[in-house]
Amino acid sequence: MSNRQLVYQLSQGGAEMKKLLGGKGANLAEMCRIGLPVPPGFIITTEVCSAYYEAGRRIWPALEEEVLANLGLLERQTGRVFGGEKPLLVSVRSGAVVSMPGMMDTILNLGLNPQAAEGLARETADRRFALDCFRRFIQMFAQVVLKVEHHHFENILEEARRRRQVKNDAGLEEGDLEAVIEAYLKRVRLDSGADFPMDPREQLFLAVQAVFDSWHTPRAAVYRQINRIPDNLGTAVNVQAMVFGNLGPDSGTGVAFTRNPSTGERKIYGEYLLNAQGEDVVAGIRTPHPLEGLQRDLPDVYSRFVDLCRILENHYREMQDIEFTIERGKLYLLQTRTGKRTAAAAVKIAVDLAREGMIDKATALQRVEPSQLEQLLHRCIDPAASLDVLAKGLPASPGAATGKVIFNSDKAQAMDQAGEKVLLVRPETTPDDIHGINAARGVLTSRGGMTSHAAVVARQMDKPCVCGCEALRIDEANGLFFIGDQEYREGEILSINGSTGQVILGEVPLIDPELTPEFRELLDWADGIRRLGVRANADTPQQARLALEMGACGIGLCRTEHMFMDKERLPVVQQMILAAGREEREAALAALLPMQKEDFKGILKAMAGYPVTIRLLDPPLHEFLPNRDELLLEVNRLRWEKGDLALQKKKEALLQKVRALSEFNPMLGHRGCRLGLVYPEIYRMQVQAIFLAAVELLAEGLPAESLQLEIMVPLVGHVEELQLMKREIEQVAAAVLQAHGRELPYLVGTMIELPRACVTADRIAGSAAFFSFGTNDLTQTALGYSRDDVEGKILPFYLENKILPENPFVEIDRDGVGELIRIAVEKGRAARPGLKMGICGEHGGNPASIEFCHAIGLDYVSCAPLKLPIARLAAARAVLRSE
Amino acid sequence: MSNRQLVYQLSQGGAEMKKLLGGKGANLAEMCRIGLPVPPGFIITTEVCSAYYEAGRRIWPALEEEVLANLGLLERQTGRVFGGEKPLLVSVRSGAVVSMPGMMDTILNLGLNPQAAEGLARETADRRFALDCFRRFIQMFAQVVLKVEHHHFENILEEARRRRQVKNDAGLEEGDLEAVIEAYLKRVRLDSGADFPMDPREQLFLAVQAVFDSWHTPRAAVYRQINRIPDNLGTAVNVQAMVFGNLGPDSGTGVAFTRNPSTGERKIYGEYLLNAQGEDVVAGIRTPHPLEGLQRDLPDVYSRFVDLCRILENHYREMQDIEFTIERGKLYLLQTRTGKRTAAAAVKIAVDLAREGMIDKATALQRVEPSQLEQLLHRCIDPAASLDVLAKGLPASPGAATGKVIFNSDKAQAMDQAGEKVLLVRPETTPDDIHGINAARGVLTSRGGMTSHAAVVARQMDKPCVCGCEALRIDEANGLFFIGDQEYREGEILSINGSTGQVILGEVPLIDPELTPEFRELLDWADGIRRLGVRANADTPQQARLALEMGACGIGLCRTEHMFMDKERLPVVQQMILAAGREEREAALAALLPMQKEDFKGILKAMAGYPVTIRLLDPPLHEFLPNRDELLLEVNRLRWEKGDLALQKKKEALLQKVRALSEFNPMLGHRGCRLGLVYPEIYRMQVQAIFLAAVELLAEGLPAESLQLEIMVPLVGHVEELQLMKREIEQVAAAVLQAHGRELPYLVGTMIELPRACVTADRIAGSAAFFSFGTNDLTQTALGYSRDDVEGKILPFYLENKILPENPFVEIDRDGVGELIRIAVEKGRAARPGLKMGICGEHGGNPASIEFCHAIGLDYVSCAPLKLPIARLAAARAVLRSE
Repeated sequence: MSNRQLVYQLSQGGAEMKKLLGGKGANLAEMCRIGLPVPPGFIITTEVCSAYYEAGRRIWPALEEEVLANLGLLERQTGRVFGGEKPLLVSVRSGAVVSMPGMMDTILNLGLNPQAAEGLARETADRRFALDCFRRFIQMFAQVVLKVEHHHFENILEEARRRRQVKNDAGLEEGDLEAVIEAYLKRVRLDSGADFPMDPREQLFLAVQAVFDSWHTPRAAVYRQINRIPDNLGTAVNVQAMVFGNLGPDSGTGVAFTRNPSTGERKIYGEYLLNAQGEDVVAGIRTPHPLEGLQRDLPDVYSRFVDLCRILENHYREMQDIEFTIERGKLYLLQTRTGKRTAAAAVKIAVDLAREGMIDKATALQRVEPSQLEQLLHRCIDPAASLDVLAKGLPASPGAATGKVIFNSDKAQAMDQAGEKVLLVRPETTPDDIHGINAARGVLTSRGGMTSHAAVVARQMDKPCVCGCEALRIDEANGLFFIGDQEYREGEILSINGSTGQVILGEVPLIDPELTPEFRELLDWADGIRRLGVRANADTPQQARLALEMGACGIGLCRTEHMFMDKERLPVVQQMILAAGREEREAALAALLPMQKEDFKGILKAMAGYPVTIRLLDPPLHEFLPNRDELLLEVNRLRWEKGDLALQKKKEALLQKVRALSEFNPMLGHRGCRLGLVYPEIYRMQVQAIFLAAVELLAEGLPAESLQLEIMVPLVGHVEELQLMKREIEQVAAAVLQAHGRELPYLVGTMIELPRACVTADRIAGSAAFFSFGTNDLTQTALGYSRDDVEGKILPFYLENKILPENPFVEIDRDGVGELIRIAVEKGRAARPGLKMGICGEHGGNPASIEFCHAIGLDYVSCAPLKLPIARLAAARAVLRSE
Repeated sequence: MSNRQLVYQLSQGGAEMKKLLGGKGANLAEMCRIGLPVPPGFIITTEVCSAYYEAGRRIWPALEEEVLANLGLLERQTGRVFGGEKPLLVSVRSGAVVSMPGMMDTILNLGLNPQAAEGLARETADRRFALDCFRRFIQMFAQVVLKVEHHHFENILEEARRRRQVKNDAGLEEGDLEAVIEAYLKRVRLDSGADFPMDPREQLFLAVQAVFDSWHTPRAAVYRQINRIPDNLGTAVNVQAMVFGNLGPDSGTGVAFTRNPSTGERKIYGEYLLNAQGEDVVAGIRTPHPLEGLQRDLPDVYSRFVDLCRILENHYREMQDIEFTIERGKLYLLQTRTGKRTAAAAVKIAVDLAREGMIDKATALQRVEPSQLEQLLHRCIDPAASLDVLAKGLPASPGAATGKVIFNSDKAQAMDQAGEKVLLVRPETTPDDIHGINAARGVLTSRGGMTSHAAVVARQMDKPCVCGCEALRIDEANGLFFIGDQEYREGEILSINGSTGQVILGEVPLIDPELTPEFRELLDWADGIRRLGVRANADTPQQARLALEMGACGIGLCRTEHMFMDKERLPVVQQMILAAGREEREAALAALLPMQKEDFKGILKAMAGYPVTIRLLDPPLHEFLPNRDELLLEVNRLRWEKGDLALQKKKEALLQKVRALSEFNPMLGHRGCRLGLVYPEIYRMQVQAIFLAAVELLAEGLPAESLQLEIMVPLVGHVEELQLMKREIEQVAAAVLQAHGRELPYLVGTMIELPRACVTADRIAGSAAFFSFGTNDLTQTALGYSRDDVEGKILPFYLENKILPENPFVEIDRDGVGELIRIAVEKGRAARPGLKMGICGEHGGNPASIEFCHAIGLDYVSCAPLKLPIARLAAARAVLRSE
């Protein structure tokens, strides 16, 4: 440290010196540099903080000397003397490089003692004001520096107010304040074992030490650990001459944004109070006025402030959040920083600034956090609303909904048809509830995770859903439900926030989503930069059209099983599953064929000109069958009643089949291509439907090059599985095409969703024209996490205890799952250069995961249609960040 | 081929020319070379086979010329003429390098036609013999070469026997045989559209072509594919002068082993028939006599044969399987090859040969297949018994058992106490059945796989078990069970073979296992060579002692959960699980503590001087709770009856807890260290028990260096999990040791059983003193196979259709799981050189997997105690094979 400058005057610094001067100090210096009215002061650098620790938490002579030299300068600049007749008062604040809660904030009015207070009284001709400043200073200093507990001072004030019989401190008179100060000082002596330091220099150095010490509080340390801020960065200390907003009606204080932080509108937005200090605004004792009022109250100051806002915004090329104080008609800026804003405002401001020529498009893209966009794409709860949150579940499908709680899907449908808003609330849902989910505004379940039936179907139907809300207990028989110990009746109105998992009592105001022109423009810019393709996961023509509107350049995952879940088809699907033999099964499949064909036709038509990846049937068959517990009870009842023997036999047979199909670990059981291999007739029907759809579209005049078919075989672990399925697919395709005298190129590829597939990707690539990483299942298998079981029960514990940094089902686990993908990419491309690769798990809509996909060189990501804007933006930002 | 010799005389070859001459031919040549009596002949090389295919399946002139030249030589050697008055007859046989079913076997008597037959009649003065030879030749040739169907000839013979009213062909007279020959030739003309070839040279070349053609039959091709035999190896053709064992009472034929193939006893063991051809023995028309009888019948021949056997065994330094023919008092050897033998014989022969100085120890070790040893280590079904196999399930725990079928564990226990042999037969078992499994001789279930409760507990208790026998259906209410459509009563006697999965009707004779002195010696030799350590998976002092007896050098996996399953502890364990809060849970744990301590004490005492790896609790808690379906029905019944309300409430609460703990995919749920993290008090109790056991043993005088404690944290996926658990373990250990004033070094390590753990092994190694690969779970997660669901349902289909070469739960999947292990070994050792690594999955007892473990440099394998001999031998062989 010997040769380094330890202390900088504000006028010596600038915004680029953030690392040395901290964020706050650098901005103050910057304002100073460009000639804006900032109270003079100096900054002790962040390097001093580290040296302070190295020196064993001591202020060493050279530092003391340099601080005092700067203090002397400040005395000369202000024409005041520290502790003198016309006293110099200062504020002391911490200033880390990154703003950090848990660190010391501010000590105001430092430099006061009885003599200086009397000097201030004389100077301002307001003794009450001076005493009040002194009282505030003692309290703040004692709490923050001397660690005297807050409540002692509150008790003393309380007692003074009680004696004077006034409600707030403004009612206290000079004598009262003298008594309060007396009592404060006594308390300090009692608690800290020493007299309150009355030497301003001692005050200053103690405050500086307190700032440095606050860098190493446990709370600050934890915060740094979470946010990966290095421990050795240190904090700066800002020392500035005080200015007072509470010196009469021509004084005041306020905060303002240079643009509207809610809407982004290009208009200054702020609040102010006259004859007040910043504290008063924060404490909420008085309600501040909208900034426009200042135009009437102090028109010159107002117009000066508007100018300053413009200057600051132009200078920083970014919307600013500014604190100011007016001291007897003179305006001072106390802080400027980048203003926080809503997603809508972020989009508008970024696009407006680019249009205004302040920033370029790349910068505009970097100004909007992709994850923030979620709220623009779903109906959401008005952020201004106050909520009575009863419980929290898993945020299983985003968006918000309000409705009457209904336990039964038939009833939900009936009430919906009668025009009532309904929330379907169940322990868990089954395929029998599809119509109920469809009728409801949203779904709430007490069991199941992010991949439970309710969650999957709700996301698919784009209905808000909260799952696995363990505080919820349903007593269907008695029409009651419980949240914790509280009892509610069926029909009660609840609201859910599927983006946060909140369950809220009563109706809440909702805001509809919109794609503003600015939003569209920003996404256009993103498209111009990104290198990752962006596809959608879509299973219906409607979803396909939505996907195109949202900017999809193809479908990356069309799940054929959701077509099986359709209410009218489910009985046929069940017939197929319960078939006694292949013949009966093929009869049911024949009935499904025309339906599937129509599905595919609709999707392929909607996506003409774009690639469409169709995944063959994936989930275990028992997912399409009735609930086992319910069936067990029903059979038991029928046996008891000894009534309808035929029905009993039928149900018994059904139960036996359900039991035979039920698995210990269905996630790792008979599903994916294992179904296709054991029951080849199912996949054959699906492939037939795909190519029948294609030839019909060709016959209707669609050019062949508009059909870009990609058929995907799920859950391949051994290349032999893919080889057999591929042969099967090619046979069926050739048969259909030949029968109709058509030719049509198509691709056969596979999901990579098992660790074994990753490490044998070179062999698999030999038979696959494309890889699509199924990161949901890959995360489940690589980490050994059943999402249904782990997400609601174990992950919250793991996240809270920092065992995991992120939910791996939301953000891709780079070290584990990511490493497996990296291996697969490397092996796959080595075996087949140019192999097309994408990702179709839910990670495809997560910005950090998209950045990873870009980094390892995938060709595209695929995500839910409403996540497409996020993906487009994130993909562009990944390019910008990697450059 | 132009310069290569195409045909070799027997006298030109030798055993080392197997690749060129095929196995059979090389051995014939070798016998010829050492001067043994072999009928003269020649061999067309395997290279000719490939050239034959290259030539478009044609015999080219040079080949024809060389064959005829050798034929001429043979005529001169035998003093006979092909097709002549004193006819030369030959046998033609295929001879692949590796013996291969599905290929052409043999044509005898080739060279016969009407004239040659009459010549043979005159020469042997036995016209009936000559005609019978001709008939046999026509039939054989027509079937094998001309592809005339077998049954035609059988019909003609049948008809002849009917007409003559005799039971077998020996009763047919010359005239009958003439008629049969007539009918045969007519049939051949009819079916093949041409006359039977009467030119011996034409016969020979057709036969040679047939041998070559049989190399490419579909059956042979499939066999090669399965056994990875290259398609271009080809087969040789052996042409040898015929000798006849059916020329009267001084002729005969037989087979013999130079040592007893069942017991290994050093005594020739064989069978013979006088006046017979090999065919007659094979066809089972006459029963052969034990070879000893030949000593009486033809003493000179017998003593010559004994000499030859000795010569051959000494020459090959291996037990031989020899075919011989006696033609009018002269002995010929027709084949010699390594004799197949039982496991017991293999061990005895290998050790005896080494003791006799014929082979060295390394060779002896290579002579015994480790997998064969299984049958020596379990009670097994007498291989001689004929079995009425009713069904097949999964071979879940090896060994065999017979007993009365009982459905209920209490009843099983009662009957066992009354001295009855019982088989516990249930749909599946739960912890409530522990006493039933313990009482039963074996367990049979209709559901569940190799890791189901029944399978795990049975293996643990070393009881035979067949699981997931889907043909079995139990009607407990009516005391009936069904296998397929057949109905049986409870109490029926069944037998099961837990090594094969067979379910057998009635009682079967069983053979007890033994470790013979030879077996022990062989294993001692193995220990001298192997580099892999061999540890046991053992959970009780008894198992630990058995493990030591079987040669364990430590315990690689001590599963603490099996201690929880104990009948008397289960209620306390359930109390612990059902506890409302931590306090109640800790009370139950306090009750378990002294029990666990005694468990550990017993094991550590038994294993004094050896390392013991103790795994902390692993399985999900609901495994210790009652069956959910049964509880559901019981609650339902109680509700219905409206009787005992208190009981109903209690059961309802229990059901609610069981439901809350039940998981969609328990394999991927709340288990392993996830339990330890969420309920730290459980692991804390276990660690306390371990160290209390240790300090008590120290107090009893056991030296500290005899305690080699290794504490293993299961299911770690993130190093953070291990770090937290390790800290917890160290705290508890330090507290116990300090309280007793002891010091004791110990290791903390982890299971590597998740793909994520493999790819982040470098990070995990930073906190682990050892890795133990849990290949059961790693196989499940890497392949996405729930063993319970996949093994009984999908794997049979996959194995049958060659999608998988082996059951990956039996033999380690090298490409997938093996690659993940390889990555983990590499990363682990890079981060921590010398990191101790082993494997404790069931693969630890599988020879191919052990070889893999050796190859990638693990330190040890751990397996069930009774698998230790297999592991020791396999580990030694792995060394020998890699040298």
